[in-house]
Amino acid sequence: MPATPLDSATYSSLLGDAELARLFTDAAEIRAMLLVEGALARAQGEAGTIPETAARAIHRASLEVWIDPAELADGVGQSAVPVPALASAFRAQLPPEHAAFVHWGATSQDIVDTALVLRLRQAAGIMEDRLIKLAKTLGELAEAHADLPMAARTYGQVAVPTSFGAVVASWASPLLVHLERLAALRPRLLRVSLSGAAGTSSALGSSASEVRWLVAQGLDLADPGGTWHTDRSPMADLAGWLTLVTGSLGKMGLDLTLMTRSGDAVVRLGSSGGSSTMPQKTNPVLPSLLVAIARQVASLNAGMQAAVVHAEQRDATAWFVEWMSLPQMVLLTGRALTAGAQAIEGLTPDADAMAQQMQSSGGVIFAEALSFALSATMPRPEAQVAVKRLCEEAAATGSRLEDLAVRSHPDGDLAKVFDPREMLGCAPEEARALAAAARDLRQAG
Amino acid sequence: MPATPLDSATYSSLLGDAELARLFTDAAEIRAMLLVEGALARAQGEAGTIPETAARAIHRASLEVWIDPAELADGVGQSAVPVPALASAFRAQLPPEHAAFVHWGATSQDIVDTALVLRLRQAAGIMEDRLIKLAKTLGELAEAHADLPMAARTYGQVAVPTSFGAVVASWASPLLVHLERLAALRPRLLRVSLSGAAGTSSALGSSASEVRWLVAQGLDLADPGGTWHTDRSPMADLAGWLTLVTGSLGKMGLDLTLMTRSGDAVVRLGSSGGSSTMPQKTNPVLPSLLVAIARQVASLNAGMQAAVVHAEQRDATAWFVEWMSLPQMVLLTGRALTAGAQAIEGLTPDADAMAQQMQSSGGVIFAEALSFALSATMPRPEAQVAVKRLCEEAAATGSRLEDLAVRSHPDGDLAKVFDPREMLGCAPEEARALAAAARDLRQAG
Amino acid sequence: MPATPLDSATYSSLLGDAELARLFTDAAEIRAMLLVEGALARAQGEAGTIPETAARAIHRASLEVWIDPAELADGVGQSAVPVPALASAFRAQLPPEHAAFVHWGATSQDIVDTALVLRLRQAAGIMEDRLIKLAKTLGELAEAHADLPMAARTYGQVAVPTSFGAVVASWASPLLVHLERLAALRPRLLRVSLSGAAGTSSALGSSASEVRWLVAQGLDLADPGGTWHTDRSPMADLAGWLTLVTGSLGKMGLDLTLMTRSGDAVVRLGSSGGSSTMPQKTNPVLPSLLVAIARQVASLNAGMQAAVVHAEQRDATAWFVEWMSLPQMVLLTGRALTAGAQAIEGLTPDADAMAQQMQSSGGVIFAEALSFALSATMPRPEAQVAVKRLCEEAAATGSRLEDLAVRSHPDGDLAKVFDPREMLGCAPEEARALAAAARDLRQAG
Amino acid sequence: MPATPLDSATYSSLLGDAELARLFTDAAEIRAMLLVEGALARAQGEAGTIPETAARAIHRASLEVWIDPAELADGVGQSAVPVPALASAFRAQLPPEHAAFVHWGATSQDIVDTALVLRLRQAAGIMEDRLIKLAKTLGELAEAHADLPMAARTYGQVAVPTSFGAVVASWASPLLVHLERLAALRPRLLRVSLSGAAGTSSALGSSASEVRWLVAQGLDLADPGGTWHTDRSPMADLAGWLTLVTGSLGKMGLDLTLMTRSGDAVVRLGSSGGSSTMPQKTNPVLPSLLVAIARQVASLNAGMQAAVVHAEQRDATAWFVEWMSLPQMVLLTGRALTAGAQAIEGLTPDADAMAQQMQSSGGVIFAEALSFALSATMPRPEAQVAVKRLCEEAAATGSRLEDLAVRSHPDGDLAKVFDPREMLGCAPEEARALAAAARDLRQAG
Repeated sequence: MPATPLDSATYSSLLGDAELARLFTDAAEIRAMLLVEGALARAQGEAGTIPETAARAIHRASLEVWIDPAELADGVGQSAVPVPALASAFRAQLPPEHAAFVHWGATSQDIVDTALVLRLRQAAGIMEDRLIKLAKTLGELAEAHADLPMAARTYGQVAVPTSFGAVVASWASPLLVHLERLAALRPRLLRVSLSGAAGTSSALGSSASEVRWLVAQGLDLADPGGTWHTDRSPMADLAGWLTLVTGSLGKMGLDLTLMTRSGDAVVRLGSSGGSSTMPQKTNPVLPSLLVAIARQVASLNAGMQAAVVHAEQRDATAWFVEWMSLPQMVLLTGRALTAGAQAIEGLTPDADAMAQQMQSSGGVIFAEALSFALSATMPRPEAQVAVKRLCEEAAATGSRLEDLAVRSHPDGDLAKVFDPREMLGCAPEEARALAAAARDLRQAG
Repeated sequence: MPATPLDSATYSSLLGDAELARLFTDAAEIRAMLLVEGALARAQGEAGTIPETAARAIHRASLEVWIDPAELADGVGQSAVPVPALASAFRAQLPPEHAAFVHWGATSQDIVDTALVLRLRQAAGIMEDRLIKLAKTLGELAEAHADLPMAARTYGQVAVPTSFGAVVASWASPLLVHLERLAALRPRLLRVSLSGAAGTSSALGSSASEVRWLVAQGLDLADPGGTWHTDRSPMADLAGWLTLVTGSLGKMGLDLTLMTRSGDAVVRLGSSGGSSTMPQKTNPVLPSLLVAIARQVASLNAGMQAAVVHAEQRDATAWFVEWMSLPQMVLLTGRALTAGAQAIEGLTPDADAMAQQMQSSGGVIFAEALSFALSATMPRPEAQVAVKRLCEEAAATGSRLEDLAVRSHPDGDLAKVFDPREMLGCAPEEARALAAAARDLRQAG
Repeated sequence: MPATPLDSATYSSLLGDAELARLFTDAAEIRAMLLVEGALARAQGEAGTIPETAARAIHRASLEVWIDPAELADGVGQSAVPVPALASAFRAQLPPEHAAFVHWGATSQDIVDTALVLRLRQAAGIMEDRLIKLAKTLGELAEAHADLPMAARTYGQVAVPTSFGAVVASWASPLLVHLERLAALRPRLLRVSLSGAAGTSSALGSSASEVRWLVAQGLDLADPGGTWHTDRSPMADLAGWLTLVTGSLGKMGLDLTLMTRSGDAVVRLGSSGGSSTMPQKTNPVLPSLLVAIARQVASLNAGMQAAVVHAEQRDATAWFVEWMSLPQMVLLTGRALTAGAQAIEGLTPDADAMAQQMQSSGGVIFAEALSFALSATMPRPEAQVAVKRLCEEAAATGSRLEDLAVRSHPDGDLAKVFDPREMLGCAPEEARALAAAARDLRQAG
Repeated sequence: MPATPLDSATYSSLLGDAELARLFTDAAEIRAMLLVEGALARAQGEAGTIPETAARAIHRASLEVWIDPAELADGVGQSAVPVPALASAFRAQLPPEHAAFVHWGATSQDIVDTALVLRLRQAAGIMEDRLIKLAKTLGELAEAHADLPMAARTYGQVAVPTSFGAVVASWASPLLVHLERLAALRPRLLRVSLSGAAGTSSALGSSASEVRWLVAQGLDLADPGGTWHTDRSPMADLAGWLTLVTGSLGKMGLDLTLMTRSGDAVVRLGSSGGSSTMPQKTNPVLPSLLVAIARQVASLNAGMQAAVVHAEQRDATAWFVEWMSLPQMVLLTGRALTAGAQAIEGLTPDADAMAQQMQSSGGVIFAEALSFALSATMPRPEAQVAVKRLCEEAAATGSRLEDLAVRSHPDGDLAKVFDPREMLGCAPEEARALAAAARDLRQAG
C-alpha cells in the first residue's frame, strides 16, 4: 500500500470510499482552488477592484483550464503552498492583460481554505445522507425486533434481559444527535476565507468586505464577516464531529464483533470474510473495520485539536498538521458510514441463540428480577443476599436458578420473573421511539 | 507532586483552580451521589414505587449524612464503583425499614453519571462566566488599541501591518463561538441518567419513565427520555469542547510567548516569573502554561474520544478512561481560563517597539502594499518582481525599502504605502466589531 | 474523586499504588530536591567551588530539614518552578554564612529533573521487580497448562486449537522483552542533570564538569557528560516504555475479559467484582482496569512525545506537559502491574468449557487440519473447497464436521485430525520455553 | 491532495520521499509478499514439507510473476487481507501440480507481517544512513562555530550566553542516541513471522520450527523462535522510535523557526519559501515542516501504541490501525530526515546579529554572571538582589547593565563578566565533543 491504504488500489474495496475520494485528489483540489480564484475575480470585477473584462475572462477560464498537479510540485516544494505555482500556471493560460489580475490581493490561505471548505461541503452532504439512511435502516431493524429478548451484557457478563431492537436503537440513537451536531456545525464551517496576507484584507482594497460578501454569494458559502486565518476551531470542530461519528459507529462495530463470537453468536452478518488457511472462518471484517477506524480517527483528532494552537497570523507548523489529518479523517468517516451500512445489511438476529444465552449459567440473568420479586416479602438487602446465595448454589450445582428459587420460595409468584418477555422494561418502547424518530428524518438526498 | 500537579499543594498557585477543585474531591462526589439517591427516593415515593415515609426519610438523610471517602475504598476495590459501598454505608445510617428502599432499581452507573452531571453543570456555569469575563476584557483591550499598528507575522516573518486591537480580537473571537457551542451542548449533557442495570429500567418498575422524569425535575436536569448508558457522546462532546476552549487559549498563550521574546518584545505582561539563578528574567509563565494546558488537554481528549467505543450495555474498559480523563480536562480548562485572565491583566502594548519592528529589515513589511501601488502603472506580476528585487537590494545593502522605492519610482504616490496607519485594512474595524459583540454578552454571574 | 482517581481515597483500592505513590507526593518531591541540593553542595565543597564548611552544613541540613509543600505555593505561582522558593526556605533554616552557598550555579531544571530521576530510579526498580514476579507467575501457569487444549480465536471466531499454556505464555513473552528494554533504557535515563541556566554550566565555574561528576557519584547516578536540558528523549523514551508495558498488560486484560464472558467462559478469575443491583454478577474488574490503563497511558504518551519538541534552551510550554503526564503514567503502570498480578492470582482454566468450546459450531475448529489431511490425496485448493463445503453443510444441518468428513472421506485417516491434543502444534513447546525463560530471570528484589 | 499529501503529486516536493516511497506502494507490497511466499516454499521444499520440484517452481515464479494490485481489491474487500487473493492469483500463474503448494500452512498475517518487515529493514537502513549523514553535517557545523557566542533563551527570554556550536550540538546529540536505540531495536523487529493461523504452527507440520528457521535464513531475517502474531510491541517500539526521531528533528525545526524570526534573526537558511502575495517573504518552510511532522507522528503513535492491546490470537480491530498508521509514520520520518538535511544545508549564523542580541535590553544577559562576580564580595542572595535592582534600573532607564554595574561596583573586576566569549562555560567543549562523536560514526552507506 502507499502511505495509507486509503490511497491504495489493493485495499480499495476494504477501505476505499470512491464517492468521497473524488473530493480528495490532486485534481479536485486544483479544480476547487481555480473555482475560488474565479469567484474572487468575478466579485472583484463587480466591485470595481479589477477591470470587468479581466474579471470575466478569469472567471470563465477558471472553469475551463486544466492544470497538471505535478506541474505545481516544484512551486509547492519552494513555498509550501500550491497557490503561487497555481496562480502562475493559471496566468500562463490567460492573455497578459487579464492574467495580471488573477489572485488579486488574496493570500494562499484564502484560496486553500476556501477550496477545502467547498469540498467539505460536498463531503458533509454525502456523510449526512449516509447517516440518515443508516439511521433509517437501523430504525427499521430496531422496530422489527423491538420485542425480541436477548441478554444485555455489562463487563461482558450476562446482566438482565433487553431486546435486540433496543440494542439496535442504542446504535442509531447517537447518530440522530450527530445529525443535529452537524447542522449546528455547518454555518460555522461553510464560510469563505478571504482576508489577505495577515487577515486585515488590506491588499483587497477598500471594497474588501463587499468583495468577500460577493465571493461568499458566488460560492454559496457564508460570509464570516472577518478573518478566520488563525481561528482553526471550525476545522477542529469538524474533526471532533468526525471523531464522534466514527466513535459511535465503532461502538456498533465492537458490539457486532462480540455478538458474532463463535460458540456464542446471537446474530448473523450478511457478509463476512474468509481466511487464507481456515476454510470455516466467517470473520466479522466490517465490524472490525468500524472499531479500527474509530480508534484511528481519535488518534488523528489529537493532532487536529493541538493544531488549534496556531502561532501569530499564520503558522505552517500547525496548518500542515491539518493537511496531514483532516482529509484522512473525512475519508475514514465516509468509509465507516458505508461499512456500517454494509454491516447492517442482512444482519439477522438468531432468536434461538438469544434465548439459549439467557438460560446460560443456570439462568442467573433473572437474578435481579428475582431479588425484586422477593423484596415484596422481605427487605431488599436481605432479598439480594438470598438471591446471591441461590446464584452461588446454581453455579456450584449446575442447577437452574428458577428451580432453586421455586423450591426455596414456594409461595412466591415467580412465573413472570423468569419469562424474559415480561422483563424487558422500557426496551421495546425505546426501540420503537427510535424507529419513529428515524422515520421522521428527512429522506436522504 | 502527587499523580498530577492539579492535586498538589506545592503547585496549587500555578495549576490549581480552587473554585472548580471543590467540585472534584472525594467528598463532593459522595455528596452528589447522595443527592441523586435522595432525589431518586423522593421521586419513587411520589410515584408510589416505594413507601412515601421511606422516601421522605431517605431524601432527608441524603442531605445530612456524612460518609467518609476512605470507608468506601474496600468496596470500590471489590466492585470498581463506589455505589454498592455507598448504598451500604447510607443504609447503615437509616432505620432498617427505610434503608431497604435506598437505591431501588437503579444501577451504579445511574448514580455515578448523574452525580457527575450535577457537578459538570456547576463547572459549566463557572467556565461560562469566566469565558464571558475574559471575552469582555479582551474586547475592551481590542477596542482601546484598535488602531495601534503592529507587524503581523506569518511563519514568524514580518508580513504586513495589522493592529494590536485586531490581534487581541483574534484571541477573543473564538471564545464567543465557544459560548455558543456550550449553549448547544448543555441540553445534551445536563441530563439525568436513570435506566437501571442495562438501560431497560426493568427493575425501576412500571413507573420507570415517570420516576426518571421526577428525578430530572428534582435535580433540575433534563429528562433524556431513555437510557444513555452506552452513548458516551455527550461526555465526549464536552471533552471536545474543553479541548477547543483550551486550544484557543493556547493560541493566545503562544502569541504572548512570542510577543514577549526579549530583544523583540512588543507587549509587557502584568505579571511574569523569575528564575532561580538569573536575576534579570521575567518569564512569560502564564502564557507558557496556556500552551501546555492546550497540548495536555488535546492528548487527554484522545482517550475520551476513543472511550466512545463502549462495548455492549456497560463497559468498564471504556468508562474508567473517562474517569481518568474528564475531571483533569475540566480542571485544566478552568485553570486555563483563570490563567488567561491573569495573563491579560496588565497586558500593555509597547507602541514604540511595535513601530520599530515594522521598520526592521529595511521596512520590507510594506512590500505587498508597494507592489499593489506599483500595479497601478504596470502589470501586477511585474510589480511583484520589481518589489522582490527592491527587497533583495534592501537586504543586501541595508537600505530602507522606502528609500529604494522612491528612488526607482520617483513618480509614484508612495507616501501612504509606507505609513502603517494607512495600511491596516479591516483590522481596526474587526477589533471594534469584536469589542461590540463582547460588550453585548450577558453580564457574567 | 480529585483531579484523578489516582489521588483519591475512595478509589484507592481500585487505582491506587501505595508503594509507588510514596514517590509522587509533594513531600517526596521536596525531599528529593533537597537531596540534590545537598549533593550539589557537597560536590562543590569537594571541588573547591564553595567553602567546605558551608558544603558540609548544607549537605547535613539537606537530609534533615522539613519544608512544608504549601509554603512553596506562592513561589511556584510566581516563577512556575518550586526551586527558588525551596532554596529560600532552605536558606532560611541555615546560618547566613552557609545559606548563601545553597543552589550555587545551578538552575531550577537541574534540581527538578535530577530529583525526578532519583524517584524514577526507585520506580523503575519497583516496576522491574513486579514485572519479574508477574513473568514468573505467568511462566508457572503456562507450564502447568502447556498441554491443555483450548480454542484459539481470530476475529473472535474459533480458529484452530491452541493450548491454554501457550496463551498464557503469549502474555508473558513481551514482558521479558520489556525487561530488556528497561535495562537498555536505564543508563540513558538515570543521569544527573547539572548544566546551569542554559546548559553551558557557566555559573558552575571552571570545575563544572568535576562537580557534575561528583554529584553523579554522590547520588549514584550516571554522569551525562554534558547538558540534557533540551533533549527530552530520555523522558519520552521512558514514557514509551511505560506505554509498551501497559499495552502488553492491556492485551492480557482484554483476553481475560473475553475469556470470562458468561455463557462462554473458559477461565475463572480468582477475584471479581459485584454489582449494585444484580446479585449474580462477577465482573472482570481487574482485566477491565488493565485495558483502561493501557488506553489512558497511550493517550498521555502522545503529550509526552510531543513535548520532545522543546523550544530553544528551556521551554515551559513543553516541560509542563511532562509534569502533567509522566507521574500519572508511572503510577498507572505500577497499578497495571499489581492489577495484572491480582488478576492472575487464582486464575484457573475450565478444561471442560474449553473442550466444549472446541466442539461448538459442529467442531469446525478442525477444518484447517482436515483440509491438510485431505491434501494428502487431492490438491490443497480442492481440499479447501471440499472442507469449506462440509463446514457449510455442518452449519446448515447442525451436524458435526467430523461425522460429515468421515462419511464423505471414508478412506481417510482422520482420527488425529479431530483430536485437539494432536493438533496443538508448537503451542506446548512455546509455553514451556517461556516458562523456562521466566524461571531464569533473576529473582526479584 | 489524496487522503494524505504523502501520496500527492502536487505536494511531492514538500512532503514526498521518493526513496522511501518506493517501499510503500501496492506493487512493492505485492512484490514483498511474493518473496515471502517464495522463501516459504523453498524452505518447505528443503525440509521435505512440500515436493522439491514444486518448491523450486514456486520460488522461481515468486521472483518473476507480476500481479496487478487492483486485481486483489475484491479479495481484500472480502477477507480484509490481500493474501488469499494473492495466493489465488499466484497459483493461477503456476502449473496446477505446483500451485497447490503455494502458501502451505501459513496464514495471512505471516505473509503480511514478514513482507512488511522486509520493507522496514530497507527503510531502517535508509533512515540510519540519513541520521548518520545529518549528525555528521551537524557535527561539522557545531565544530565550526563552537566558540561563536549567541544568546541562550529560556521561556523565549534571553538567558545567558551560549555558543552557536553548542546549540547545533544539542540538535545532533539526541540523534546519536537514536542510532543506538535503532541498533537495539533491529533484532527485535527484523524477524520472520511464521506461525500459522493462531500461532501454533500446527498446519506447518512437524518441521515447522525448521521451516521457520530456513525462511529466516532465506530472507536474512532473525528467527523469533516462536510466534509474535499477538505481541505487537516490536511494531509499537518502532513507532515509538520514529516518534522520538521526529520529535528531536522537530525541536531543531522549532529552534530554526525562532532563530529566523524577522527583526530578530540570528541565522540565515540556505533555502526558504515565498508568499503568493508578499514579495519580501522568506519563510522557514522546512523548519516548519519538521515541527508539523513531529506533532503528526506523535498523534499517529497514540494509535499504534493503543494497538498493542490486541485481542486473543488475531485482532483486526487493532491490526488495521497499524496499517493506517505505521507506513505514514515511516514516510514522515524519512521526510523529516531529508527536510532536516535540507534545512541545515546552507545554514549560516549571523555573528553580528548574535552579538547585537546579547546587547539587547541593556545587556542583561550578563546578569547571572554579574551576580556571581559580586558574590565574591557579598553573600550570593544579596548579590542577586543587587543585580536584580540593576536590571530593573537598566530596563527603566535604558542604560546598559555593564555601565550601571561598573558605576555601582567600581572596585569589582567586571571586565570578563561582560565579555560573552568568557562566559561560554562548557558550550564550546560540548560542541567539539559532539563533533568528535559524530565524526566517529561509521560512514553512511
